[in-house]
Amino acid sequence: MRDAYLVGAAQTDFGSFPDESYRSLFRTAFEGACDSVPAGIDPDDIDEAFVGTLGVGGRQLGLSGPAATEHVGLDGVPTTRVENACAASGYAMRQAVQAVKSGMADVALASGVEVMTDTSSDATKYWLGVSGETEWERLSGTTFAGVYAQMADAHMAEYGTTSEQLSHVAVKNHSNGAKNPHAHLGFECSLDDAETAPVVADPLTLYHCCPTTDGAAAALVVSEDVVDEYTDDPIRVAGVGAASDHVGLFQRDTYTSIPASREAGERAYEMAGVDPSDLDFAEVHDCFAIAELLAYEDLGFCEPGEGGEFVAAGATELDGELPVNTSGGLKSKGHPIGATGVGQVAEAFKQLSGDAGERQVEDPTRGLTHNVGGSGGAAVVHVFERESAVDREVDA
Amino acid sequence: MRDAYLVGAAQTDFGSFPDESYRSLFRTAFEGACDSVPAGIDPDDIDEAFVGTLGVGGRQLGLSGPAATEHVGLDGVPTTRVENACAASGYAMRQAVQAVKSGMADVALASGVEVMTDTSSDATKYWLGVSGETEWERLSGTTFAGVYAQMADAHMAEYGTTSEQLSHVAVKNHSNGAKNPHAHLGFECSLDDAETAPVVADPLTLYHCCPTTDGAAAALVVSEDVVDEYTDDPIRVAGVGAASDHVGLFQRDTYTSIPASREAGERAYEMAGVDPSDLDFAEVHDCFAIAELLAYEDLGFCEPGEGGEFVAAGATELDGELPVNTSGGLKSKGHPIGATGVGQVAEAFKQLSGDAGERQVEDPTRGLTHNVGGSGGAAVVHVFERESAVDREVDA
Repeated sequence: MRDAYLVGAAQTDFGSFPDESYRSLFRTAFEGACDSVPAGIDPDDIDEAFVGTLGVGGRQLGLSGPAATEHVGLDGVPTTRVENACAASGYAMRQAVQAVKSGMADVALASGVEVMTDTSSDATKYWLGVSGETEWERLSGTTFAGVYAQMADAHMAEYGTTSEQLSHVAVKNHSNGAKNPHAHLGFECSLDDAETAPVVADPLTLYHCCPTTDGAAAALVVSEDVVDEYTDDPIRVAGVGAASDHVGLFQRDTYTSIPASREAGERAYEMAGVDPSDLDFAEVHDCFAIAELLAYEDLGFCEPGEGGEFVAAGATELDGELPVNTSGGLKSKGHPIGATGVGQVAEAFKQLSGDAGERQVEDPTRGLTHNVGGSGGAAVVHVFERESAVDREVDA
Repeated sequence: MRDAYLVGAAQTDFGSFPDESYRSLFRTAFEGACDSVPAGIDPDDIDEAFVGTLGVGGRQLGLSGPAATEHVGLDGVPTTRVENACAASGYAMRQAVQAVKSGMADVALASGVEVMTDTSSDATKYWLGVSGETEWERLSGTTFAGVYAQMADAHMAEYGTTSEQLSHVAVKNHSNGAKNPHAHLGFECSLDDAETAPVVADPLTLYHCCPTTDGAAAALVVSEDVVDEYTDDPIRVAGVGAASDHVGLFQRDTYTSIPASREAGERAYEMAGVDPSDLDFAEVHDCFAIAELLAYEDLGFCEPGEGGEFVAAGATELDGELPVNTSGGLKSKGHPIGATGVGQVAEAFKQLSGDAGERQVEDPTRGLTHNVGGSGGAAVVHVFERESAVDREVDA
């Protein structure tokens, strides 16, 4: 199994962009990713492309992969649309890694794009609704906020997690997002703001929920055989793990864990030969504040039930023991469904390249990204490591 | 790059099944694929799954991959929905091959499913419409029949192809489909039937167009390291090729060829180290009769412009020099969008296993499948070969 490397990644601004299309957003992300490659890259080098999108709004629903790549001159390149709801581009990243490891591609593009804000709120409810479990959950009127609210309720009942602890997630992520020029909601919020905001789905307030967002992201994955052409400071895709599960929450054994996240994490750690204590930062899927606490627990950052205390104690702040969602996360950076997974990869690339500006983690060796589809019907985890930093650790 | 093998494949009946759901159809195909493995297979062996579907009707649009695999007890297995319009599951097959070649999976499931006939004709027009080029073609009122009619028109003008030659495609494919118990329209038709049928989009008559269909298909791909556990007569995935192109026909340089098919075919032949003369049968994408003629020419079965004469001379009939669409093709077997690509693989598996009944090609060594998305925005080609037959050829 040959190694795969991340040599470039970028995202567009996340936000509401009435003058942009999914093609124009894709182009901005693609060009950004190419520009971010240390030694540069010729787009003609790209052997294979994956585009993650849910297709909210349904304008270019089928063939939206080739419709995106043709727009940047990649017509001819095998292009596949990958979809796993909110984990669409996390899985596009996984496919790019598999394409490179398979030997069928030396350079693969992973990308994601979504346009959400030009669609009515009712239509968005439809497009997101049909990405949850549709036979039972959706037809009984349950929304994603409703599903995650049930998880929050269960976590509160089982472990004594509090609303204030959920609000700490919002405060931290907005604080980080305020340092990220690409963030959709790049402003700070206080505990009081989050606690007193209108309730969306009890116990979740508005500040416990991510926004709907337009945006795109792109990443370039290359094989060990060609990595030297693109960088002299390689970032290896050390671990990849994914898992599926019952799409409907009501079919699972637990409401206080996302088993697909747990399995995906274990598989990624095993492949990378690391454990959570080896990580220097993580981007996790905080579509709702409770989701970030579940991620801490499922990915082994803390014990089950301790996520609330973990965030409230500051452990995941920028200067904490394991900074989480340095980008602002889905909560503050925004959540353009199909773009979120590769958007996380773009943050990991920036952090490991030392280019994260005000929100830079000090000299990181290794980071993790974690992307969830729906309420946990799919999850995918990547572990990235900067080889020069690993070598220094080994030498030390 | 380690080798990948096809050890099992099956499809459901194709047709109109008001009592079935996409989950129940998927289950039938999956169980059929498992049952078709010569030495049997334990579903727990499956490491990774890909589900191709366009999601016509939009009921379970997102996470339709995990929603299918959980229904057969594969929850936990990394499952990805792959979509490239009518080539959705041809690309799912490609991803299964990449997963196996990457070393990340020893056993991968490729599958596809579509439910089309419980949707109104207007709704179907929408779901297919948004899978063509939507900014210009769809908004100008062009349907897929309209796009392929333009190709037929151009082919007639450039090469003198006739309506009767197009009708020969229908006659041949219905003749084959009448021998396939899984076919949607499993009856014979005459040249006169095809010529005098109502015009759908001039010059294409009803018999020059495939139906909308419900159905599912599944295939099992394994690595060289484990193939012996599943069969003692291995079928190797010798070649895989794919290409994208401009999604809109109006943006391409030619209307009388599908360049993505041509590139995909060349890549597959190169990887397999074969040329068209080495093939014993082919399943090609005949969504409209003109598409089959273009496939002959783009895949090198005959020279450009000679497709009409090739079919009229009987070259692609069951007893011709290169039998094409022995299953009945999209025209007679049916075209459940997401299931079509792996449905073709199921026919290749049957032929190479000697299980194709009345439509069996005599002792084939090698067969090709060819799946097109939209009007050619994506294409994917696979070449399969039965190793024992290759060995006999080499020995002879």
